[in-house]
Amino acid sequence: MSTPTDIRGLTQLGHMSGLPANPDVPVLERVPNPHPGMHYVVRFVAPEFTSLCPLTGQPDFAHIVLDYIPRDWLVESKSLKLHLSSFRNHGSFHEACTLDIARRVGALLTPVWLRIGAYWYPRGGMPIDVFWQSGAPPEGAWIPDQGVAPYRGRG
Amino acid sequence: MSTPTDIRGLTQLGHMSGLPANPDVPVLERVPNPHPGMHYVVRFVAPEFTSLCPLTGQPDFAHIVLDYIPRDWLVESKSLKLHLSSFRNHGSFHEACTLDIARRVGALLTPVWLRIGAYWYPRGGMPIDVFWQSGAPPEGAWIPDQGVAPYRGRG
Amino acid sequence: MSTPTDIRGLTQLGHMSGLPANPDVPVLERVPNPHPGMHYVVRFVAPEFTSLCPLTGQPDFAHIVLDYIPRDWLVESKSLKLHLSSFRNHGSFHEACTLDIARRVGALLTPVWLRIGAYWYPRGGMPIDVFWQSGAPPEGAWIPDQGVAPYRGRG
Amino acid sequence: MSTPTDIRGLTQLGHMSGLPANPDVPVLERVPNPHPGMHYVVRFVAPEFTSLCPLTGQPDFAHIVLDYIPRDWLVESKSLKLHLSSFRNHGSFHEACTLDIARRVGALLTPVWLRIGAYWYPRGGMPIDVFWQSGAPPEGAWIPDQGVAPYRGRG
Amino acid sequence: MSTPTDIRGLTQLGHMSGLPANPDVPVLERVPNPHPGMHYVVRFVAPEFTSLCPLTGQPDFAHIVLDYIPRDWLVESKSLKLHLSSFRNHGSFHEACTLDIARRVGALLTPVWLRIGAYWYPRGGMPIDVFWQSGAPPEGAWIPDQGVAPYRGRG
Amino acid sequence: MSTPTDIRGLTQLGHMSGLPANPDVPVLERVPNPHPGMHYVVRFVAPEFTSLCPLTGQPDFAHIVLDYIPRDWLVESKSLKLHLSSFRNHGSFHEACTLDIARRVGALLTPVWLRIGAYWYPRGGMPIDVFWQSGAPPEGAWIPDQGVAPYRGRG
Amino acid sequence: MSTPTDIRGLTQLGHMSGLPANPDVPVLERVPNPHPGMHYVVRFVAPEFTSLCPLTGQPDFAHIVLDYIPRDWLVESKSLKLHLSSFRNHGSFHEACTLDIARRVGALLTPVWLRIGAYWYPRGGMPIDVFWQSGAPPEGAWIPDQGVAPYRGRG
Amino acid sequence: MSTPTDIRGLTQLGHMSGLPANPDVPVLERVPNPHPGMHYVVRFVAPEFTSLCPLTGQPDFAHIVLDYIPRDWLVESKSLKLHLSSFRNHGSFHEACTLDIARRVGALLTPVWLRIGAYWYPRGGMPIDVFWQSGAPPEGAWIPDQGVAPYRGRG
Amino acid sequence: MSTPTDIRGLTQLGHMSGLPANPDVPVLERVPNPHPGMHYVVRFVAPEFTSLCPLTGQPDFAHIVLDYIPRDWLVESKSLKLHLSSFRNHGSFHEACTLDIARRVGALLTPVWLRIGAYWYPRGGMPIDVFWQSGAPPEGAWIPDQGVAPYRGRG
Amino acid sequence: MSTPTDIRGLTQLGHMSGLPANPDVPVLERVPNPHPGMHYVVRFVAPEFTSLCPLTGQPDFAHIVLDYIPRDWLVESKSLKLHLSSFRNHGSFHEACTLDIARRVGALLTPVWLRIGAYWYPRGGMPIDVFWQSGAPPEGAWIPDQGVAPYRGRG
Ligand SMILES: [Ca+2]
Ligand SMILES: [Ca+2]
Ligand SMILES: [Ca+2]
Ligand SMILES: [Ca+2]
Ligand SMILES: [Ca+2]
Ligand SMILES: [Ca+2]
Ligand SMILES: [Ca+2]
Ligand SMILES: [Ca+2]
Ligand SMILES: [Ca+2]
Ligand SMILES: [Ca+2]
Ligand SMILES: [Ca+2]
Ligand SMILES: [Ca+2]
Ligand SMILES: [Ca+2]
Ligand SMILES: [Ca+2]
Ligand SMILES: [Ca+2]
Ligand SMILES: [Ca+2]
Repeated sequence: MSTPTDIRGLTQLGHMSGLPANPDVPVLERVPNPHPGMHYVVRFVAPEFTSLCPLTGQPDFAHIVLDYIPRDWLVESKSLKLHLSSFRNHGSFHEACTLDIARRVGALLTPVWLRIGAYWYPRGGMPIDVFWQSGAPPEGAWIPDQGVAPYRGRG
Repeated sequence: MSTPTDIRGLTQLGHMSGLPANPDVPVLERVPNPHPGMHYVVRFVAPEFTSLCPLTGQPDFAHIVLDYIPRDWLVESKSLKLHLSSFRNHGSFHEACTLDIARRVGALLTPVWLRIGAYWYPRGGMPIDVFWQSGAPPEGAWIPDQGVAPYRGRG
Repeated sequence: MSTPTDIRGLTQLGHMSGLPANPDVPVLERVPNPHPGMHYVVRFVAPEFTSLCPLTGQPDFAHIVLDYIPRDWLVESKSLKLHLSSFRNHGSFHEACTLDIARRVGALLTPVWLRIGAYWYPRGGMPIDVFWQSGAPPEGAWIPDQGVAPYRGRG
Repeated sequence: MSTPTDIRGLTQLGHMSGLPANPDVPVLERVPNPHPGMHYVVRFVAPEFTSLCPLTGQPDFAHIVLDYIPRDWLVESKSLKLHLSSFRNHGSFHEACTLDIARRVGALLTPVWLRIGAYWYPRGGMPIDVFWQSGAPPEGAWIPDQGVAPYRGRG
Repeated sequence: MSTPTDIRGLTQLGHMSGLPANPDVPVLERVPNPHPGMHYVVRFVAPEFTSLCPLTGQPDFAHIVLDYIPRDWLVESKSLKLHLSSFRNHGSFHEACTLDIARRVGALLTPVWLRIGAYWYPRGGMPIDVFWQSGAPPEGAWIPDQGVAPYRGRG
Repeated sequence: MSTPTDIRGLTQLGHMSGLPANPDVPVLERVPNPHPGMHYVVRFVAPEFTSLCPLTGQPDFAHIVLDYIPRDWLVESKSLKLHLSSFRNHGSFHEACTLDIARRVGALLTPVWLRIGAYWYPRGGMPIDVFWQSGAPPEGAWIPDQGVAPYRGRG
Repeated sequence: MSTPTDIRGLTQLGHMSGLPANPDVPVLERVPNPHPGMHYVVRFVAPEFTSLCPLTGQPDFAHIVLDYIPRDWLVESKSLKLHLSSFRNHGSFHEACTLDIARRVGALLTPVWLRIGAYWYPRGGMPIDVFWQSGAPPEGAWIPDQGVAPYRGRG
Repeated sequence: MSTPTDIRGLTQLGHMSGLPANPDVPVLERVPNPHPGMHYVVRFVAPEFTSLCPLTGQPDFAHIVLDYIPRDWLVESKSLKLHLSSFRNHGSFHEACTLDIARRVGALLTPVWLRIGAYWYPRGGMPIDVFWQSGAPPEGAWIPDQGVAPYRGRG
Repeated sequence: MSTPTDIRGLTQLGHMSGLPANPDVPVLERVPNPHPGMHYVVRFVAPEFTSLCPLTGQPDFAHIVLDYIPRDWLVESKSLKLHLSSFRNHGSFHEACTLDIARRVGALLTPVWLRIGAYWYPRGGMPIDVFWQSGAPPEGAWIPDQGVAPYRGRG
Repeated sequence: MSTPTDIRGLTQLGHMSGLPANPDVPVLERVPNPHPGMHYVVRFVAPEFTSLCPLTGQPDFAHIVLDYIPRDWLVESKSLKLHLSSFRNHGSFHEACTLDIARRVGALLTPVWLRIGAYWYPRGGMPIDVFWQSGAPPEGAWIPDQGVAPYRGRG
C-alpha cells in the first residue's frame, strides 16, 4: 500500500479562492510522489483554457492536455487549475503561451518527462495546434495518445 | 484442445456474497493458465470503479482497464470484480489507488507483463488519468490500445 | 433578388474593438431584414460562452444556441458576438444569465419567435442545461433540433 | 434583468460536507426562481448515480437525467447532488428508486412539469431504463430529447 | 417511498439455472408494480438474442428492445432473460418470432401499453427489422426513441 | 403462437440462381402474413443497390430502405433481393427508378402502408435522395426514422 | 499496356463549360416529372457552396441542403450545380443569399413544396444557419430531417 | 492474372448444411493460395460468435477477428463459418476457447503468420478480451489494427 | 427563365464512354510526375467497387483504397476509375481480384512503393479484408493509415 | 516567460484586405520564433481550401493540414490564410498544387521539419489524397497524427 500523502503544506485546498490576477502570481504547489520508484504517467486535461490575443484583446480558447512522469513530486491539482485560470485576462501568442505553461510546471516538478498539447480554437477559420515534449520518453513507459481530433471546419 | 480448468479451489464462485469492507480483505483468487506456453494478453474492463476522496469524503469515479500476459495463473474474474468493489467506501488519492491495484494483482499472479490505465472522472472540470506498466512488453506479443478517449469537457 | 442591406448605421464594423466591460454596455445592433415577408429561422451558435459564478468568482462555460424568426430586423452578427463576450468578467447564475440574453435580443428585434438553449459545462460533475422559447413557433415554419448532446460524464 | 437570488437560507453551500447516510436525511434545498413568469426547462444530469441492489447487496449504477419547468422555486444544485449521493449505500429496486427521486424533487418544488429518465447499467447483459413525466408538458414550452442512447451490448 | 416488493413468489431468483429447452417451457414471472398509479415506461434491451432459421437451421441473431407501461405487474428481469434465451435452439421466422415475444409478455402483464422492436442481423446482405406496438401510447406518457440505427452495409 | 408459413409456392428458395437480366423479369414472390391482424412494420435495407445512368451508361449506386405494413402478404426476402439485383445492368433515372421499385412491391402486396427512401451516391459532388410513402401511416402504428445521414461531402 | 497520355490535347476534354460569371446568368433547367401524381421528396446536397462577403470580399463557405416535392418539373441536376457555382465570385449576405436560391428554384419549378437549409461556416467563431420552407408540407408526405449537426466549436 | 482456384475438393459449398454438433466435428477446409509469393493479409470477422459457459451453462458471446498471412493455403470461408458455429452448444472458458480456434486454423494452414482477437461480451459488468499472435509479423508486411473499441460500460 | 431541357439530344452528352467489358480491355493511362524528386504519397479511394462471385454469379462489393509513391509517372485518375469499373461483370475470388489490381497498376507505373487494402462486404455475415504492400515503405516517407473500420456486424 | 513578438514588420495585420489575385502575389510573412531552442510542432488547418481544375475550369476543394517544427521563424497566420486564399481562381493539378504550398512555406521559414497532407474532395466519386514530408522528423519530437478520415463514399 502507498504512503499517506503529506498535505500540511497545501495552501489552496479547503477554502474558496478567487482567480489570480495573472500568470506571474505564484499559485502552483506540489505534493510528494506516493510511488516514487515507478515510471507512471499522470495526465491533466483543461478543456476550457482561455487567454487574450496580445494584438486585438479578443478572447482566445484552447483545449490543453498535459502529460508527465513524476520524479519526486506530483503537481497539486487545484493549484494547477488556478494557475491555468490566471491566463484569463492575460495577452499572449498561442505558441508562446503554450510553452510558458510547460516550462513553469517543469521548473516546479523537475519531472522525468513532460509534454504539452495545445489545441487552439479557430480564429478566421484556421486554427493552430502546438505540440512539445521535453525529449523522448523513458524506455518501457506507457504513454497513450492525447486523442484530440484535429479541426475539421464545419463538415 | 485445452486442459479443463481445475476449479476446486475457488471460494467466491457459486454463491452470492456481499461487498468486502475494504481493499485489505483478501478476496483475489487465481486459476491455472490453460495455455501456459503462449504469450497472449487478457484484458479486464471495470467501467464503474468508485472510491472516496481521502480529503473530502466525496465519491470519485474511474474507468479502469487492466491488461496482462499470464505466466502460470489467470486471475479469477469474479474475485477481481469483488476486489475492485472493495474500494467503494475506501479513501485514497487517484495516483496511489491506481498503482495499489496494479501491485496487488501483480503480487498474486507474477505475470509476464502487466499494465493499468485509470481514467478518473473530472472534479472541478479537470480530470486526471494515470498510466503504468511493469516494463516494456515481451517481443512478438500483440497489445492493442486501451482505446479510452481523453476527456473533452462539454464539447 | 433581395434589397441591398443598409449598413450606414453600423458602428462596430470595420475597426478593431476591445471587449465591453459588462453586459450593460450597449453594443447590440440590428440591420434590416432582406426578406421581411418570409418566415425563416436564423441560428447563431456561441460554443465558448464564458461568465463568472456569482458566489465563488470561478469561471463558468457554456455552449449557447440562439434561434429566431425575424420580423423587421436581423441582429448584426459582430455586435452579438461582442455582447456575448461582455459576460466574460460578469457574475450571474446559469438560469438568470441565459434568460437575460434572450430578453435582450428579443427587446432589440421584436422577432416573430425566439428560443435559446444554454448547455453549461459541469461543475462538480453535474451540468445544468436551460431551454426557453417565446412561445409555440408559427405554423408552417421549419425549426430543426439544436442537436447538442446532453452531458455523458466520462463515459 | 433578473432579481438577485436570495441565498441566505442555503445551508449546504460554503462548507465541505460528507455524504448523507441515506435518502431520508433531508438535504434538498431550493432557491427562488429568478424568472418566474417564463416557461423554461432546467436539466440536470447525474452520470454516475449509484445505489445497492436490495436482494444481493451488489452495487448498481445509473445515468440519470432530470428535466423540469420551475414554478416558484429552483432546486439548489449542490443539495441535489448530495441527495443523489445519499443512495450510495441504500438498497432499492430500479423502478422504485427512480420514481422516488422524481417524487422527492416534485414535492420540494411543485414545478409546472417534471420528468426523469434513468438509464441503468446492465446486470446480466440486459439493462433496464425507466421513464416518467408528471403529465404532458405545457403548450409552447420547448423540451429537447434527453439524448441518451439505449444500451447496445458489446457491438 | 414505495412499498417493498413482495418477492416470495419468485422461483428463478437465487439459484443458477440452465437454459429452458424451448419457448413453450414456462419461465416468465412477474412482480407487483411499486408505483401502480404512474404511467412510466420500462425498457429492456436484449442485444444478443439468437434463434434458428426454420428453413436452413442456421443461427439468426437480433438486437431486441422491449418497452412497456406497467399496469399491475412488472416482468421479473431474470425470468425474461431466461425466456429470451429459450429461443437459442428454436426455429422461427423473424416476423413470427418477434410478435410471439410481444404476445407472451403482453399476456403475462396485461400492460397499459407495449411495443417491441427487433433488429435482425443481415443474412445475404439485407437485414429485416420488425416493429410493433399494442396501439397508440396513452396521452402524456413519455416514450423515447429506441435509438437503434438501421443497417448500413459495410460503409 | 403463429401459424407455420406455407412455403410450397416459393420457387427461388433452395437453389442458387443467377441474376435476372432486367427488372421486367418476374421474380418477386410473397408468403402469407403470419400475424395478419397486427399493424407492424417490416423494414428491408439494401445498402449496395446499383443501376446504370440512362444517359452515360456509368454505374450509379444507392442505399435503399423499404418500410411497409403488411395486409395479407409478406414479400419473400430472397426474391426481393433478386429483384433489386436485376437493376444492375438497367438504365434509369434516380427519381424514376426509386418509384418503380415502390410501385412493383406495392402491386404485389397491396400493403396497408409502404414507403421508400433512396439515398443515391454523389455524381459530380452532389447526391440526390428520393423519399416517398403511400400516404399517412395508420393511426397507432410505430414507424421509426430510417436513420440514414444525408451526404456531408468530404468533411 | 497503354502509352502515356499526351496532355496537350486534353484542354478541350469533354467540351466542359466554365463557371457562369454570376447568379444572374441563366443556367437552371428543368425536365418533366416522371411520376407527376405522387408526392415524393427530392433532396440535393451541395456540401461546398462558396460565395464572397459583401463587406470584406473574403470567401464564405456553406453546406446547403435543398428539399422539394415536384409538381410538373424536376430541376436538371447539372444545371443546378452550375447555378450554385455561379455564386463563387459574387458578394451577398448569408440570409439574403440563402433565400435567393430558394426563390430562383421555386420560380423555375413551382413545386408543391420546397425548403432550404444553409449551414454557413463560422467567421469569428460564430456560425449562422438559415432555415426556410414554403409552408407546411402536404399531408401524408414523408420529409426526413436534413441531419446536419449544428456547429460545436473545437470540442 | 491469377490462376483459377481448384474447387473440386470442397465438400461444404453448394448445398445447405446444418450446424456441426461440436468443435471436434471436422469441417474446416482449405483452397490453394492464388498469389503464393506475396505477403498479404486475409482478415475474417465473426461478429456474433457464441458458446456456453462451462460452469453455469449460460450463453457467452464474442466478436472475433482472425488475421493471417497465407503460405500455400487459404481457409475456405464457408467452412470457417461452420467451424465457428460449432461452438454454439459447447462449454469452454473464454481464454481456452479463443486459443483453441487459433490453434485449429493454424494447424490446417501452417500460415506465415496468424493472430486472433476475441472481444467477449460482459458478464457481471466486466468483460474479458483475449489477444494472441503466432509471433512478430514478417518484415514489410502491412497489418492494420483490428479496430474493435474496448468496452465502455453504459456511458 | 430557361426553357425545359429536351432530353432527346442528351444521349451524346460529353462524349462519355461506356464501361469496358472486362479487366483485360486496356484503359489505364499515366501522366508525368510533376514533382519527381519528392517522396510523396497519392491515395485513391474507390468506395463502391463491384465484381461477381466466380462460383454463384452473385454480385460482390468492396471498398478499395490504393496508396502509392510515384517514381516517374502518376496514374491518370479517370482511366483508373474506368479500369475499376471493368470488374462489374467479371467473376473473381476476393483474394485474387485484389492482388490483380495491385499488380496491374504496379506494372504501369513502376512506383517507388504501392499498397492496396480491399474491404469486402459480408456474405453470410462474415466479411473478408485483404491487405498487401510491395514491401516496406522508403525511409522518411509519411504514410497515414487507410482508416477503414473493420466490420462490426449489426451492433 | 517568452520574449514579446516584434510585430513591426507585419503588413497584412490590422486592416481588411481583399484576396490576392493568384499564388504568385507575395503575401507570406514571418515572425521570430519565441522559443527557438525547443523542438515543438505548429499545426495549421485549412478546412476549405479551393482552387480550379486546370483542364475543365471547375472548382476543386480540399482540406489541408500543415505541420512544421520552427527554426528561427514562425509563419504569420493571417498571411498564410491569405496565401491559401490566392488559389481560389488559379488552375492546378492536385498533386502539383499540394507540393507548391509546401515548397513556398519551406522556402520562407527553412524550418527544422515540415509536412503537408491534402485531402481532396471527390470528383466522379473517387477522391485523391496527397501526403509529403521534408524527411524523417527529428528524434524526440512529438508529432501527432493529422487525424483526417479517408473518404468513405455515401456509407
Ligand atoms: Ca463539408
Ligand atoms: Ca494502435
Ligand atoms: Ca465546445
Ligand atoms: Ca463509463
Ligand atoms: Ca427531437
Ligand atoms: Ca456485434
Ligand atoms: Ca461505402
Ligand atoms: Ca424520431
Ligand atoms: Ca470540411
Ligand atoms: Ca426526425
Ligand atoms: Ca471543449
Ligand atoms: Ca494504426
Ligand atoms: Ca457515464
Ligand atoms: Ca450488439
Ligand atoms: Ca497515433
Ligand atoms: Ca453503404
